Amino acid sequence: MKGLKIATIGGGSSYTPELVEGFIKRYDELPVRELWLVDIPEGEKKLNIVGALARRMVEKAGIPMKIHLTLDRREALKDADFVTTQIRVGLLEARIKDEQIPLKYGVIGQETNGPGGLMKGLRTIPVILDIAREMEELCPQAWMINFSNPAGMITEAVLRYSNIQKVVGLCNVPIGMRMGVAKLLDVEADRVQIDFAGLNHMVFGLHVYLDGRNITDRLLEQLTSGEKSGVTMENIVDLGWEPDFIKGLRLLPCPYHRYYYQTDKILKEEKEAAQEKGTRAEVVKQLEQDLFELYKDPDLNIKPPQLEKRGGAYYSDAACSLIHSIHNDTGDIQPVNVRNNGTIAGIPPESAVEVNCVITREGPRPLTVGELPVAVRGLVQQIKSFERVAIEAAVTGDYHQALLAMTINPLVPSDTVAKQILDEMLEAHRDHLPQFFRENRLPTT
Amino acid sequence: MKGLKIATIGGGSSYTPELVEGFIKRYDELPVRELWLVDIPEGEKKLNIVGALARRMVEKAGIPMKIHLTLDRREALKDADFVTTQIRVGLLEARIKDEQIPLKYGVIGQETNGPGGLMKGLRTIPVILDIAREMEELCPQAWMINFSNPAGMITEAVLRYSNIQKVVGLCNVPIGMRMGVAKLLDVEADRVQIDFAGLNHMVFGLHVYLDGRNITDRLLEQLTSGEKSGVTMENIVDLGWEPDFIKGLRLLPCPYHRYYYQTDKILKEEKEAAQEKGTRAEVVKQLEQDLFELYKDPDLNIKPPQLEKRGGAYYSDAACSLIHSIHNDTGDIQPVNVRNNGTIAGIPPESAVEVNCVITREGPRPLTVGELPVAVRGLVQQIKSFERVAIEAAVTGDYHQALLAMTINPLVPSDTVAKQILDEMLEAHRDHLPQFFRENRLPTT
Amino acid sequence: MKGLKIATIGGGSSYTPELVEGFIKRYDELPVRELWLVDIPEGEKKLNIVGALARRMVEKAGIPMKIHLTLDRREALKDADFVTTQIRVGLLEARIKDEQIPLKYGVIGQETNGPGGLMKGLRTIPVILDIAREMEELCPQAWMINFSNPAGMITEAVLRYSNIQKVVGLCNVPIGMRMGVAKLLDVEADRVQIDFAGLNHMVFGLHVYLDGRNITDRLLEQLTSGEKSGVTMENIVDLGWEPDFIKGLRLLPCPYHRYYYQTDKILKEEKEAAQEKGTRAEVVKQLEQDLFELYKDPDLNIKPPQLEKRGGAYYSDAACSLIHSIHNDTGDIQPVNVRNNGTIAGIPPESAVEVNCVITREGPRPLTVGELPVAVRGLVQQIKSFERVAIEAAVTGDYHQALLAMTINPLVPSDTVAKQILDEMLEAHRDHLPQFFRENRLPTT
Amino acid sequence: MKGLKIATIGGGSSYTPELVEGFIKRYDELPVRELWLVDIPEGEKKLNIVGALARRMVEKAGIPMKIHLTLDRREALKDADFVTTQIRVGLLEARIKDEQIPLKYGVIGQETNGPGGLMKGLRTIPVILDIAREMEELCPQAWMINFSNPAGMITEAVLRYSNIQKVVGLCNVPIGMRMGVAKLLDVEADRVQIDFAGLNHMVFGLHVYLDGRNITDRLLEQLTSGEKSGVTMENIVDLGWEPDFIKGLRLLPCPYHRYYYQTDKILKEEKEAAQEKGTRAEVVKQLEQDLFELYKDPDLNIKPPQLEKRGGAYYSDAACSLIHSIHNDTGDIQPVNVRNNGTIAGIPPESAVEVNCVITREGPRPLTVGELPVAVRGLVQQIKSFERVAIEAAVTGDYHQALLAMTINPLVPSDTVAKQILDEMLEAHRDHLPQFFRENRLPTT
Repeated sequence: MKGLKIATIGGGSSYTPELVEGFIKRYDELPVRELWLVDIPEGEKKLNIVGALARRMVEKAGIPMKIHLTLDRREALKDADFVTTQIRVGLLEARIKDEQIPLKYGVIGQETNGPGGLMKGLRTIPVILDIAREMEELCPQAWMINFSNPAGMITEAVLRYSNIQKVVGLCNVPIGMRMGVAKLLDVEADRVQIDFAGLNHMVFGLHVYLDGRNITDRLLEQLTSGEKSGVTMENIVDLGWEPDFIKGLRLLPCPYHRYYYQTDKILKEEKEAAQEKGTRAEVVKQLEQDLFELYKDPDLNIKPPQLEKRGGAYYSDAACSLIHSIHNDTGDIQPVNVRNNGTIAGIPPESAVEVNCVITREGPRPLTVGELPVAVRGLVQQIKSFERVAIEAAVTGDYHQALLAMTINPLVPSDTVAKQILDEMLEAHRDHLPQFFRENRLPTT
Repeated sequence: MKGLKIATIGGGSSYTPELVEGFIKRYDELPVRELWLVDIPEGEKKLNIVGALARRMVEKAGIPMKIHLTLDRREALKDADFVTTQIRVGLLEARIKDEQIPLKYGVIGQETNGPGGLMKGLRTIPVILDIAREMEELCPQAWMINFSNPAGMITEAVLRYSNIQKVVGLCNVPIGMRMGVAKLLDVEADRVQIDFAGLNHMVFGLHVYLDGRNITDRLLEQLTSGEKSGVTMENIVDLGWEPDFIKGLRLLPCPYHRYYYQTDKILKEEKEAAQEKGTRAEVVKQLEQDLFELYKDPDLNIKPPQLEKRGGAYYSDAACSLIHSIHNDTGDIQPVNVRNNGTIAGIPPESAVEVNCVITREGPRPLTVGELPVAVRGLVQQIKSFERVAIEAAVTGDYHQALLAMTINPLVPSDTVAKQILDEMLEAHRDHLPQFFRENRLPTT
Repeated sequence: MKGLKIATIGGGSSYTPELVEGFIKRYDELPVRELWLVDIPEGEKKLNIVGALARRMVEKAGIPMKIHLTLDRREALKDADFVTTQIRVGLLEARIKDEQIPLKYGVIGQETNGPGGLMKGLRTIPVILDIAREMEELCPQAWMINFSNPAGMITEAVLRYSNIQKVVGLCNVPIGMRMGVAKLLDVEADRVQIDFAGLNHMVFGLHVYLDGRNITDRLLEQLTSGEKSGVTMENIVDLGWEPDFIKGLRLLPCPYHRYYYQTDKILKEEKEAAQEKGTRAEVVKQLEQDLFELYKDPDLNIKPPQLEKRGGAYYSDAACSLIHSIHNDTGDIQPVNVRNNGTIAGIPPESAVEVNCVITREGPRPLTVGELPVAVRGLVQQIKSFERVAIEAAVTGDYHQALLAMTINPLVPSDTVAKQILDEMLEAHRDHLPQFFRENRLPTT
Repeated sequence: MKGLKIATIGGGSSYTPELVEGFIKRYDELPVRELWLVDIPEGEKKLNIVGALARRMVEKAGIPMKIHLTLDRREALKDADFVTTQIRVGLLEARIKDEQIPLKYGVIGQETNGPGGLMKGLRTIPVILDIAREMEELCPQAWMINFSNPAGMITEAVLRYSNIQKVVGLCNVPIGMRMGVAKLLDVEADRVQIDFAGLNHMVFGLHVYLDGRNITDRLLEQLTSGEKSGVTMENIVDLGWEPDFIKGLRLLPCPYHRYYYQTDKILKEEKEAAQEKGTRAEVVKQLEQDLFELYKDPDLNIKPPQLEKRGGAYYSDAACSLIHSIHNDTGDIQPVNVRNNGTIAGIPPESAVEVNCVITREGPRPLTVGELPVAVRGLVQQIKSFERVAIEAAVTGDYHQALLAMTINPLVPSDTVAKQILDEMLEAHRDHLPQFFRENRLPTT
């Protein structure tokens, strides 16, 4: 049958219009025959709203892409060519807890780092593994394109605990860094290349190129020169790095590195923000409601510009771009999460890393990184240790592994605080953590 | 010439009587012909006091060991068989600063971890490398037995930046852990063996054996059972680990792991102690003064029992034991700091690690460790990253490398605080950090 | 129950008297309560002869060690403390084929190297894995001490394809090298130590020590000085190495390295020997018959001195020594085949290597080797590649894997000759290679 | 100054017209302003012939590329953008010796493998390192594009023993394999991609793709099906591999693998050929003379088609293609010899490997390979061992290292034969091996 079948798990997401737009604009080279938007019963209402918008968008574009809406995941997966996963187990309510509970203990509350990242992993991994197992049965040749967070952990969980090896984890952080550099240099983004290497939300730009020429030294000089007035490089400069620190580091950190290299500042900001305007999740929740109000408008037949403020810009477009490159064997380079296989020295072959890959019909082929710079190797290893113990806990439902993951996370100040946060969060997310509550697994306190 | 020549750099230390006692009691198998106690002019007074005591001890023992006191290091090194280094650059005054200054910024102040450990490394490494270079000239076949802190960093600096490859770093932490376990089990210490692996002050007990039988599970069960009343396992139990954390970890942490897994508690304790009785350095300073008062007593001709309270118990004895084992090719197993050479997976061959070694005439031969358990691998790598950047800074006097080391240390909360602490500490230790003040190297603020 | 139960698979071997002697002389420290000699029906006659001798030896020694003779392997394994395996699948008849068939094609015929080594592995590995599986059921805590050849391949097969991880492979080559060096230096063997590293029958002496002092340079000088008259260092000098080659190599090869570094000479020798006195197997067969004639003598109650000429001297004694060291947690160093676990760089952790180990109650603990010298690394890797493909072929019975193993073996000159030899040898050993003849697995020619 | 300056060392080579043609046809995108053809006095006559042809070719093409002919290498290197090296130290006379002498000892004589490859390395490496040192001074930013053999060894020698890190080694074997597969499949070559990995003249095709789809299994099936009639896949099928061997191997060997997997056949072929028509070098010498006769024709102004029979087809074109891709930052994938840096597991980071690379303005960026298949890992490691010892010998002129390299080469049957061949070849090539004849370095026999 001509054209592709794509199954989008979490299809009722507010991001879906970006995905639909992405497929529409690439239709000539990436002919999507059927786009299946799948959601769970709790998301049916949103699915219908966003699905109706998607249909209007397709109709306006005048292309024969069929939009299917369903709560039957198996039907959607059957013979799919690509499966995109953009799920949020527990919805934004769960994210609110991930952000609020740690703050009560003086610990950063964030959805992909620290205690929040751990809990999100514990909730999401089992669901993604269920999808992977259904894929083994229903579409074993399909690619899973995951942009659910924590994307690195999830990619590794699929690689280690399922037979689906055609899995790629996507993130919009590298794209944002590239755009930030382009803006700073005042050039088109496609003239800038960056050697990305590290883990998801822990990725570094090792070298920066303009038109293929290594300009890392010049760029770092510019970044740390103090003459920043007028420049608005959102992703780097405004993060407020100490220039002397960057001069020692000699590479580009990503925005999430602030959680580790500016822990105290971030915590202070979070506390203030929580008081003033609620946590990020609460802000996002309001944004989402506004978006869905917009989506309901029967005259709307394009992706509304307001979506870009939502925070996950480029995510869905990155997914379309990746699918396009795989389908057309383009050989362009994209930073994605894949099996390490020796790409970064010292990380197990079986672990997921976020690195530049040549995208081919047979999937992403990573470019060799070798040893990471000495100064950042340790932190990357520490996060990888955390991720691996967290995955183990997610899969087994073992309380002690979960506590171990929480304690070794560098944002958590002690085993005692780790236990307090874990106990409260396990209880708060109880409905979405069945693996921890089987057979009275949890110890009584 | 029969008998050994030993040069002890920092001979005026209050620990020296333990060293002397160690040589005396092993004299039959380890015939020390000459013990040269070397110190700097500022330490001459103490050197004379401790030297006189040493001579009285030797006289009482009735052995022909000659004690030499000198400020001329080269004379002492000339043709030495073993060189022990137990120096404290800047004396206890410097340690007081290492402990006090970070606390002002809400950061743990400790002499071998965090900012204090960094500064101690920056002060000590150049001096040790000077000694190593003199050894290359005056006693190239000698072993350097270092128990100056930070012992791991110093061992690695000598391995990487001198031609002295016969260097061993010593620590009393493993001995303390072994004694603690023996006490808990109520058995003689020599019936207990522990598989030690990690870095200096970052060492883990991977398995514990009683009479050669692996009792790790049983021991951990006992440690976490809650029935601790009456037991006083100073180095483990009283550290107050969460039992559930230890159940997840499945190995023995060392006391210094508290700085990383109980950061908030330690900081709180330090703050309280500083208010009540001063920092540890101030307490130690008083202890030292009391000890030297004792040492002056012309009737004293043994190591006074009060020395054991000083905190560094077993250090000097460990040194004598190591020298004895090398000299006599005993083949016993001791945990020491040596070149990794693949012993611990993922650590560079050239880096120093603290692991069990068979002690032979040709030096320590490490036993293969392989991969560290996933959960601790990351932290060990992070500390090794810190150590390597710190060594680089110590050797080059590069301000940005020093700031980088400070910022990536897991006890430091941000690049900004790192810079504040570093700037104040560099200034405070200016006299002992000439490499940072050559040619106006430091950036003007 | 006091005392140990030992099961010796292949108990009817002519080596058994050495094993019995080894247990008798160590009885005080290694109280063997029951020694079960197990054999197959074809070996019953020999088993009875050797068993009767064993009983006379025990009686003469006056110790309460019970000798059991049985064809029921399961009964022997039940609750055993140690299982020694000294089997020869297909008996000496098979070895004769291993030695003769390759020679017909101008290829070295040897029982542990080249085509013969491959075929011996294919025959032996399935039987050893059967024993391992019975051990899992009947004595899961026992140690398997294997001295069946090819010992390295067999150790790795057990490590990779069974749950028995307490397995050690033994060889008498390192002992022979040590004795050879001692003889050359005219000192007692226990004053000589050698750093052994490599694979079974592919082991190198990296450094040689006399009384713990590294004398490698001096020894190599002596070995290559040309003043060899009068010296009879059977294992090294008489091998006829080119002195200039050894000067480049800077380490001790083992006798089996001749197959690789003197391929043409060995082949010539083998051809001549085969014409004059038959292959080695035929010689051994006669020796064995003579031995069994001796063993029948009802007045014989000691190990007859003629056994030492048999060629496998020290093998059984090495086994007793190893069992003694494990049982008594002696901590001495022995070269054995164990899981690599990072000991030798570049070899997979799961592979077997032959290295110096500290022998403890919990088994052998290897000493770190790190990188092998550049010049020998490649050959070791090549043999390990061969071993791994051979094991795969032995376990699966896959013809193409067997041919691949044969072709990549460095003693085989081409894929075509490999196929000819393989086809003839598979047919010749058909009765002992059931895995290759299931379901018409073999391709028709 | 607009346009590139290219210096071609060994410019008098018969291959130069292909190089010139390559630059002419790419002129629009790769504007070569000056092409400097450099040779040594012995090559002046050829240089003038080939230089005159080059000028006629440029004139016919009507492009402003200036051809310079010179014996002054420094002048040519000064400010060059690219330096191509295509030298043959000792000319074809030396190659004749490399091919003939080993044959006398029953050993394969070949210019890049076995004894010949070693001697060619010993002669060529010092000259290339001289060029590299001149580049450090005269054009430190230039790329060295080496297609002198043995290309892998030479690349590694430059990486390890000079400051020129912008060096790439080129070979036409991968191109030939790709064209062979295309021919077999009857498709255009640019629709075929192969995952190349290994060493120079020891490269494997791990997977084969048609239009980006992995067709390895299908291709191997076709290759081994026996239905080869009518197919002429010169580089694979006609090599006469045993189909069952290829079925076990599951990847594409390169033609040079015949030396290792079909040693006896090659030797036989060589012996016969030497008798019938002389060694390959002698054949080539005649071909060269014929070519230069052609080149002299003042009416010839294109690359004569006869050049393609010379054997090195595609070499020069590969060089032009690589230079084009670097200059234009094309990002296409080419198999070249570069620093390993972790690309192939188990090979040192500093060693050269031949792997697929993305070609960028900053040079080739290798794609991660990870572990090579078990069966071929060993041979690759063995050749790398040989190469490293050979480089060491080439740089130091150490006789024992040279003998070590010769002995561990898998084509040499023993240390004794190695010594005989080495001694004869050192003497035969004496004029081009000054490093071995300084200060009476060679041992007297």
